[in-house]
Amino acid sequence: MSRLFNYGDDVLLCEVGKERTYLVALEAGGRLHSSRGIVEHEDLVGSPPGSEVVTNIGARFLALRPRIGERMFKVRRRTQIVYPKDAGWLVIALDLRPGIRVLEMGTGSGAFTLLLGQFVGPEGRVYTFDRREEFLENAMYNVARAGMADRVEGRVLSAGEPFPVSDVDAAFLDLPEPWEAIEAARAALAPGAPLALIVPTAEQLKRAVETLEAEGFSRTEIVELFERRVLVRQREGVRPSERMVGFTAYLVGARAPA
Amino acid sequence: MSRLFNYGDDVLLCEVGKERTYLVALEAGGRLHSSRGIVEHEDLVGSPPGSEVVTNIGARFLALRPRIGERMFKVRRRTQIVYPKDAGWLVIALDLRPGIRVLEMGTGSGAFTLLLGQFVGPEGRVYTFDRREEFLENAMYNVARAGMADRVEGRVLSAGEPFPVSDVDAAFLDLPEPWEAIEAARAALAPGAPLALIVPTAEQLKRAVETLEAEGFSRTEIVELFERRVLVRQREGVRPSERMVGFTAYLVGARAPA
Amino acid sequence: MSRLFNYGDDVLLCEVGKERTYLVALEAGGRLHSSRGIVEHEDLVGSPPGSEVVTNIGARFLALRPRIGERMFKVRRRTQIVYPKDAGWLVIALDLRPGIRVLEMGTGSGAFTLLLGQFVGPEGRVYTFDRREEFLENAMYNVARAGMADRVEGRVLSAGEPFPVSDVDAAFLDLPEPWEAIEAARAALAPGAPLALIVPTAEQLKRAVETLEAEGFSRTEIVELFERRVLVRQREGVRPSERMVGFTAYLVGARAPA
Amino acid sequence: MSRLFNYGDDVLLCEVGKERTYLVALEAGGRLHSSRGIVEHEDLVGSPPGSEVVTNIGARFLALRPRIGERMFKVRRRTQIVYPKDAGWLVIALDLRPGIRVLEMGTGSGAFTLLLGQFVGPEGRVYTFDRREEFLENAMYNVARAGMADRVEGRVLSAGEPFPVSDVDAAFLDLPEPWEAIEAARAALAPGAPLALIVPTAEQLKRAVETLEAEGFSRTEIVELFERRVLVRQREGVRPSERMVGFTAYLVGARAPA
Repeated sequence: MSRLFNYGDDVLLCEVGKERTYLVALEAGGRLHSSRGIVEHEDLVGSPPGSEVVTNIGARFLALRPRIGERMFKVRRRTQIVYPKDAGWLVIALDLRPGIRVLEMGTGSGAFTLLLGQFVGPEGRVYTFDRREEFLENAMYNVARAGMADRVEGRVLSAGEPFPVSDVDAAFLDLPEPWEAIEAARAALAPGAPLALIVPTAEQLKRAVETLEAEGFSRTEIVELFERRVLVRQREGVRPSERMVGFTAYLVGARAPA
Repeated sequence: MSRLFNYGDDVLLCEVGKERTYLVALEAGGRLHSSRGIVEHEDLVGSPPGSEVVTNIGARFLALRPRIGERMFKVRRRTQIVYPKDAGWLVIALDLRPGIRVLEMGTGSGAFTLLLGQFVGPEGRVYTFDRREEFLENAMYNVARAGMADRVEGRVLSAGEPFPVSDVDAAFLDLPEPWEAIEAARAALAPGAPLALIVPTAEQLKRAVETLEAEGFSRTEIVELFERRVLVRQREGVRPSERMVGFTAYLVGARAPA
Repeated sequence: MSRLFNYGDDVLLCEVGKERTYLVALEAGGRLHSSRGIVEHEDLVGSPPGSEVVTNIGARFLALRPRIGERMFKVRRRTQIVYPKDAGWLVIALDLRPGIRVLEMGTGSGAFTLLLGQFVGPEGRVYTFDRREEFLENAMYNVARAGMADRVEGRVLSAGEPFPVSDVDAAFLDLPEPWEAIEAARAALAPGAPLALIVPTAEQLKRAVETLEAEGFSRTEIVELFERRVLVRQREGVRPSERMVGFTAYLVGARAPA
Repeated sequence: MSRLFNYGDDVLLCEVGKERTYLVALEAGGRLHSSRGIVEHEDLVGSPPGSEVVTNIGARFLALRPRIGERMFKVRRRTQIVYPKDAGWLVIALDLRPGIRVLEMGTGSGAFTLLLGQFVGPEGRVYTFDRREEFLENAMYNVARAGMADRVEGRVLSAGEPFPVSDVDAAFLDLPEPWEAIEAARAALAPGAPLALIVPTAEQLKRAVETLEAEGFSRTEIVELFERRVLVRQREGVRPSERMVGFTAYLVGARAPA
């Protein structure tokens, strides 16, 4: 595969020195209308990632292939998405790897579905379920947009219903009442396979953990992660950022029984 | 592949209700001598992950396939290892995925090498470098132990020397003076590809970030992560753990120039 | 002293169920024009703190005597103020108590001056210094407003000049370059007395700490504090707040030499 | 009062460059037997705070007057004490100042009682209550040891019983089940006066906050504080400490009704 941008590629355009970014799929005759001017898609074709492009009004944009963390933030959203700091912990907790089959309940906007798809790869399989058809349609649009339609299957299903899959290598639950899906997840998981879930309140956490124990799960671990950005400035020096996300969710990992 | 344990498999034995775990490779006639009694390997063969086994003195152990996070903690160590909370962030920052080729400078004990190996998979490639031959030998032992010898190449190399690879998809630096390897990493990276590094002090952070900028890297982000465990107890209820790791390292991500 | 509100008292008016508060000094014929209607001062006179008052358009306000933490947020500001979470740590580090004499360099808006004044009490003394006359004038306005003019003396002074006081019981430095004032603070402090300072960057921290050591200070301790609000909601339950202040300053405490 | 040490004074002896400290009351003929040698009390008399003294085996100790935060750690303990980082927040929340009358329920070892005594001063009054006579006796020993017997009254009382005081300026509850004492605290508090309490679990927090609301308290705020030490080392530079206290308690502040 060529390293240079071509039509059909996704490009992340980042205004130099600013936070603003755009995700565009290069197409013949395409143009990005940004708040800082116009970029013609054809100006990007043939240039390498990491190049700069200049808009018609002189603003500079950096052109990059989107990383998965950036793609997650660019999905068309219907719901809150799993925050990248939490996503990394979950990837480790779920023991993701190429070729495995994983289950997700609570597709939402599909941002985490993309992450699962990236780590199981084209040989793997993501089975994702949501109670609401419109969420699922939107998520599958995002999946197709990321080129992962081949490895992701979505289906409408309510929490508590049995999953139409079995012997899966990992399961992730992102639901208002995750305990409702734990028994069904146990039935779908391979013996000893990892399950992870996220919940926002202490009461939900308690109920989820008690249900995990009642269903025979073991090695339960619960964490919360704080991420603080650090600033390095030429004149002002090194200092932590004043802004910080204080809380997103409690993260829970466990192992299925035999 | 069978879901049941067989000779040759790695098994993580976890004493029920305790923190203590053992990683054993099942072999004919093998036995684990734990502080809580003996487990015969043959008692595990044929049973599914998630099963319990009882030692000769009546202690109960849970038998699981090790997850990558557990494997990282079980490497034979010569150096400090990358902490799992940080590992997850780095996996996302490096945009790991099946089949890619990644570079690591500062192999250390090889714990992060295993992580890289897991996410690039059997079709991918990890090129890992360390200045000290004895570290590299130990790390390659750990790599072979995890069944990843096919996808990992290790070589002795000092920080600052050119890397004998090019057009790699991602690079990770874990060095006392990471700025020494940034120019060489730039030369080895594909245009726009992600680089990540970790450093422990504010001064090192400043110097590393300044070198990244001087070498044309962009989209630099710096974070520190705090992980706090949460306890859910039947009688006492939900409360955060009193113990907490306050700091491991500053985590830095950036993108190579074109 | 009567517990009921009277003319001359300061009252904190807090809209019920909202964040918005107003600090008013009750005076004959006075009225508060809030965004939620008008409160006549005379309606408050004779009622106890903790009472509710209703505006002409029906909005409910709670009337309280301002606590010191609330007063600090209500000063007329010319500069950033010391954040209350940090103020508490500093009060302990400076070992404040009734009747002592304390020195402050970097008066700023005078919010921390009020705190010092509260804890040393009417028998104590606060000597506060700032390089800029206009800051000092504003701060002394805030001091008078809080009824502490009797115990606070303000004077224009540049960092590095000797302080016109000696044998003080504690010293606090809030300066862009606090190391410039450390030698003078040592000369003004009683033997073994506590000094505290705050700095925003790692480089400044290093320089300040090195100067403290060079000047013979001991028992240096450096901390940063994170404060996270927690929400308790009837239906949603207990969960940490998503918003959090990630950083304000490094807090440093030390003890003067003999 | 003389600035120099004299018999009867409390001295904090701190081994130079070490964490270990000793609190001693100077007395004629007294000697401290430390793990690093003997210090004769008479060697300290007449020297200023901040001086160094050398033991008979050559170890160096710094002699200081104890700050309140240091005194709190030196009480004879029967129970866990309020941690200094939390103490500072509580001092602000309770709006302590010279001359006021405050109530404490749950004396425990009396460490926080000392803090209250310091900030209300000799003109103020601390009424402290505990269900267990032996705790109270121990705490009153610590109070007398700190020279505050004149301003602290202790009495045995169970949570839920009415307090034998009224119109107090502030109340602090440190109890396993603080909601049991909230109604009685309301009856004892002056209108609009501040109350603070600490609780360790989410369930307790919820119940305490709901009881505060039911009893008419307002302006409830709940926080948790994290304190991280920072290290400044000549060669290694500036970096946060790896050790950190992850959690002590939820801190709650509120205002009594009229």
